[in-house]
Amino acid sequence: MQQQDFLRDAMRRLNLTRDAFSERLGVRRRALDTWLLPEASAESRSMPDMVSKFVGEILQNAPRGASAAGGGVDDRPLAQRMAADGRPHLLSVAQFDRDGLEDLFRVADTMQPIARRQKVTRVLEGAVLGSLFFEASTRTRVSFGAAFCRLGGTVCDTTGFTFSSMAKGESIYDTSRVMSGYVDALVVRHPEQGSVAEFARATNIPVINAGDGPGEHPSQAILDIYTIQREFSRLGKLVDGTHVAMVGDLKYGRTVHSLIRLLALYRGLKFTLIAPPSLEMPAYLLDLVARNGHVVEQTPSLEQGLRGADVVYATRIQKERFQGEEIEGYTPEFQVGKALVDAVCKPDTILMHPLPRDGRPGANDLSTDLNHDPRLAIFRQTDNGIAVRMALFAVLMGVEGQVARSMRDAAWRSPRHVGPDDAEFDEL
Amino acid sequence: MQQQDFLRDAMRRLNLTRDAFSERLGVRRRALDTWLLPEASAESRSMPDMVSKFVGEILQNAPRGASAAGGGVDDRPLAQRMAADGRPHLLSVAQFDRDGLEDLFRVADTMQPIARRQKVTRVLEGAVLGSLFFEASTRTRVSFGAAFCRLGGTVCDTTGFTFSSMAKGESIYDTSRVMSGYVDALVVRHPEQGSVAEFARATNIPVINAGDGPGEHPSQAILDIYTIQREFSRLGKLVDGTHVAMVGDLKYGRTVHSLIRLLALYRGLKFTLIAPPSLEMPAYLLDLVARNGHVVEQTPSLEQGLRGADVVYATRIQKERFQGEEIEGYTPEFQVGKALVDAVCKPDTILMHPLPRDGRPGANDLSTDLNHDPRLAIFRQTDNGIAVRMALFAVLMGVEGQVARSMRDAAWRSPRHVGPDDAEFDEL
Amino acid sequence: MQQQDFLRDAMRRLNLTRDAFSERLGVRRRALDTWLLPEASAESRSMPDMVSKFVGEILQNAPRGASAAGGGVDDRPLAQRMAADGRPHLLSVAQFDRDGLEDLFRVADTMQPIARRQKVTRVLEGAVLGSLFFEASTRTRVSFGAAFCRLGGTVCDTTGFTFSSMAKGESIYDTSRVMSGYVDALVVRHPEQGSVAEFARATNIPVINAGDGPGEHPSQAILDIYTIQREFSRLGKLVDGTHVAMVGDLKYGRTVHSLIRLLALYRGLKFTLIAPPSLEMPAYLLDLVARNGHVVEQTPSLEQGLRGADVVYATRIQKERFQGEEIEGYTPEFQVGKALVDAVCKPDTILMHPLPRDGRPGANDLSTDLNHDPRLAIFRQTDNGIAVRMALFAVLMGVEGQVARSMRDAAWRSPRHVGPDDAEFDEL
Repeated sequence: MQQQDFLRDAMRRLNLTRDAFSERLGVRRRALDTWLLPEASAESRSMPDMVSKFVGEILQNAPRGASAAGGGVDDRPLAQRMAADGRPHLLSVAQFDRDGLEDLFRVADTMQPIARRQKVTRVLEGAVLGSLFFEASTRTRVSFGAAFCRLGGTVCDTTGFTFSSMAKGESIYDTSRVMSGYVDALVVRHPEQGSVAEFARATNIPVINAGDGPGEHPSQAILDIYTIQREFSRLGKLVDGTHVAMVGDLKYGRTVHSLIRLLALYRGLKFTLIAPPSLEMPAYLLDLVARNGHVVEQTPSLEQGLRGADVVYATRIQKERFQGEEIEGYTPEFQVGKALVDAVCKPDTILMHPLPRDGRPGANDLSTDLNHDPRLAIFRQTDNGIAVRMALFAVLMGVEGQVARSMRDAAWRSPRHVGPDDAEFDEL
Repeated sequence: MQQQDFLRDAMRRLNLTRDAFSERLGVRRRALDTWLLPEASAESRSMPDMVSKFVGEILQNAPRGASAAGGGVDDRPLAQRMAADGRPHLLSVAQFDRDGLEDLFRVADTMQPIARRQKVTRVLEGAVLGSLFFEASTRTRVSFGAAFCRLGGTVCDTTGFTFSSMAKGESIYDTSRVMSGYVDALVVRHPEQGSVAEFARATNIPVINAGDGPGEHPSQAILDIYTIQREFSRLGKLVDGTHVAMVGDLKYGRTVHSLIRLLALYRGLKFTLIAPPSLEMPAYLLDLVARNGHVVEQTPSLEQGLRGADVVYATRIQKERFQGEEIEGYTPEFQVGKALVDAVCKPDTILMHPLPRDGRPGANDLSTDLNHDPRLAIFRQTDNGIAVRMALFAVLMGVEGQVARSMRDAAWRSPRHVGPDDAEFDEL
Repeated sequence: MQQQDFLRDAMRRLNLTRDAFSERLGVRRRALDTWLLPEASAESRSMPDMVSKFVGEILQNAPRGASAAGGGVDDRPLAQRMAADGRPHLLSVAQFDRDGLEDLFRVADTMQPIARRQKVTRVLEGAVLGSLFFEASTRTRVSFGAAFCRLGGTVCDTTGFTFSSMAKGESIYDTSRVMSGYVDALVVRHPEQGSVAEFARATNIPVINAGDGPGEHPSQAILDIYTIQREFSRLGKLVDGTHVAMVGDLKYGRTVHSLIRLLALYRGLKFTLIAPPSLEMPAYLLDLVARNGHVVEQTPSLEQGLRGADVVYATRIQKERFQGEEIEGYTPEFQVGKALVDAVCKPDTILMHPLPRDGRPGANDLSTDLNHDPRLAIFRQTDNGIAVRMALFAVLMGVEGQVARSMRDAAWRSPRHVGPDDAEFDEL
């Protein structure tokens, strides 16, 4: 493991800030900072061997699950701990506790060299993914598909609402069981809540919920938190105690619902929820968050709500959800633009969005005038989606332990930065 | 080869029942039965070496094609024997005689460890399948696609009736010849009878008919008989002399037409054809079957027709085939449900269906209340489709001899039973 | 390298006809001809070692780019020389000079054994192609997809105008940047001119323009010239000084526009442009061609225009481009059929078409009665598309140097001739 990764992983597992960690080690904060710099940086320093041994020992003595709210340690493999009804599916964020989430993130970290096209693996060679999208979602479908391919598998796609046999009265049970004889895992998007769970009950191969109408879209929430944690790791922050502002349609957006449930697994968070009067976060979620000891503030004012936030999570109004209804109070002031962000956000605030965002002028969404602002993390989010979805497939199909030792260099040339605006961020 | 496979294969090639085979070997039927049990079973016994040698000698002396109705043995490779117009296509069940069919089944048997995800092969690595579905059929498309992928190839799909160039007046000749320069095999579904043969005439690469309107869908009939034969092998029955009941729309269903033509290659079958008056099996097929010495009975009564059948093959009424017509006599009594099956079928009857079946309450179809009944073989049918389609690709592309020695273990974890109701069957 | 390839390549690089080349070497034209015959031919002879050394020395002393109109030699890798705005995209034929084009053709030549299914390579194993077709084009999509697969990569397709997120107001910038985090190269077809360049500006991964409305479709023009050059190589002709007749809709056909721009890079061509009065080649292209010293003649008469042409490039009237307009002067006499070709074309004229062609009786297009005429090169064109698109991917992704040494034999059986009418041509 690289020195930086080793130290960051240690801080995460011990749940310590840079200050607390340097104090624990008896070194100056400044020294720790230089050890955490990228190797390529001129300021970067190697940590003494003794430090590495010390940290190793601390980790060895730290009980696994130290960060969890309490209770004994569960030593089963992640696929079993997160199982749905005893089977290796991903249907809901409720399948994760904090340890499970962090274990998954560790697997995702091992996928990064592949997701970034420096390495390739073939652990899933011969495996076939069935991708069943009863509702179009190009982005999600391609993200899952590419993740499966990068593990060495192949994909059979089915898109659109024209799934021919179901139109002829076929049950979900039949469709799922038949497809399960053809492929090794299913990714399903379906407009009806609960339908993907019905698919899962009819098969023993892994089924991943890629969105079941107003229900869940768990992999999105997981990659969102993975992104927060990676951004914070870079910035020297911890998820515990952070301040998250959520903006937009908080009533119907399944993304923010899944996200807030997962964030509630952490400790001492402050949420500011910014929504027009008719689009507020449902009460049962407010209760859940409050029960877990987090602070929740609600406001219809963007300016007030964003102030001091570490994370701004903006969402689009899903207009298709209320055809013909009047959305009172939702006026162009709900746009999160560069001027507002410069005025009320911090230099290390990160701006997130589940995408797609409405890029048209005047849209009540995250503005495109932020495209060159390194705080805009939306493409780091989608990039991370590949590593997270690779991790999910690897865990559900039992190959997570084989990936690291199976990697080899990619033969083709990849750009250093994927997007033209990434260089600006990478040079931060 | 496993002991059981060796013995079953011998019985099949010699066309002997368990009773006749044990008599031929001079051993007790009971002994043979224990040799045929799965190895994992506590009752299973190894056969003495001498038996193995004896059987080997019998097989060596048995002329190949012993089971055929007559005539000399054709020693050419299967791809040549089943060729259409001298080229390696699959257009019609008429391309098979009984030997050809049984040779194909032997190839399909070697594919089973891959179809069941225990093994992987890469013999078709670098090959590309073009899948041209001018009519939607998700199940068939994915089955062929997955079969090709499991041999190591990749798939380029084209679905829907929006094949852009044909809409601009392009001929089938051009489309087929152009695609043939891009890919290594074509699977084509097209609404017009004869169209797939037209595709085939324009190219020397393998073309497989995946349904040409009212014409044929030969791979379905082949996998159906493969399933009957595998089920019978487990149950200790022979296809020769069996009693098959066919239910539903026997007039328009191309599946039953192809199936009955292939079954007619066997000996001494009894068919009961159960259809409402306006949907009976066409006369030319009745003639063909009778000419081959089989017994055919027709009845509109489900109860009477199913009684004593070894195989019940149910089909859906393809409502799209008679928009606006009245289907007299086709009332909900045509539903094949658990109560009826328990009343008139045997404990070892197998229930088959080409799928999709209409699972809605009151549908004139195979009822979903049979889902937990181990006699329901419909998912074993679709599972077998992978092995059969792999065998077809392997034979047409000349790699059938390379598969067995190229296999290696799959790296990922697969469920022991694909469907939650399979365990019940597997423990029979 | 094969003897024939070696000699042909030498003639191409030195820009010499067979006559001039044999004179240069001091051998009889007849001797050269026998060295250029396929090895399988009874007339074929090996050239003496000395000839091979002589040619090698001439080539060594010939400056690279000798064929170029003038100026110094550019020694950078092709990917850099053809870069668009510093990045490895293919957006326009304007990215190529003649040296670039010929370098690309040399790469395409190395792909031929793979494109013809004799060899396989895995250099792009682990790489994923994103194929974004906002407009249907089955042929182009499958051609690019198959080319990528034959290099060892996998493909994620998106077809139709239903790209879900863009319908929700997402910008091209977002779509392109998000997809770039998922895949390693993008092939984009889009109805709006300039849109693909907009995709390219948002990413550092390779973007290939597969048609941007009335704009360009550069890979088509490139494969067209590659085909002319290969056909001419077989016929002992040079592209310089040739006579090209273009027929059909020359006003709206982006294919002929790109093609004539690329052909203008060669020397001393004669173009006859045959179009009805309202569908003539735009003036700016006529100027460009004339400025480069080529001869241009325009005529509405098929018979007059085709006479003496070495290449006939026929195109379809894209009826969708002028809904409701009257096309004066475009009558069935515009059909290029067997009788006309026999009457006015030479035995070594080649007939080309970008396809699809309208094969219906009476269509103003290349007639199907030419299907068995070996001069019809339209399927050699589409076959060559695979090698050319493989070369483009290989160059843009930096693996062109790895392909030759990574090849191994294909395991499956391929037909000697792809199409039933190819044998006739191959035996020429």
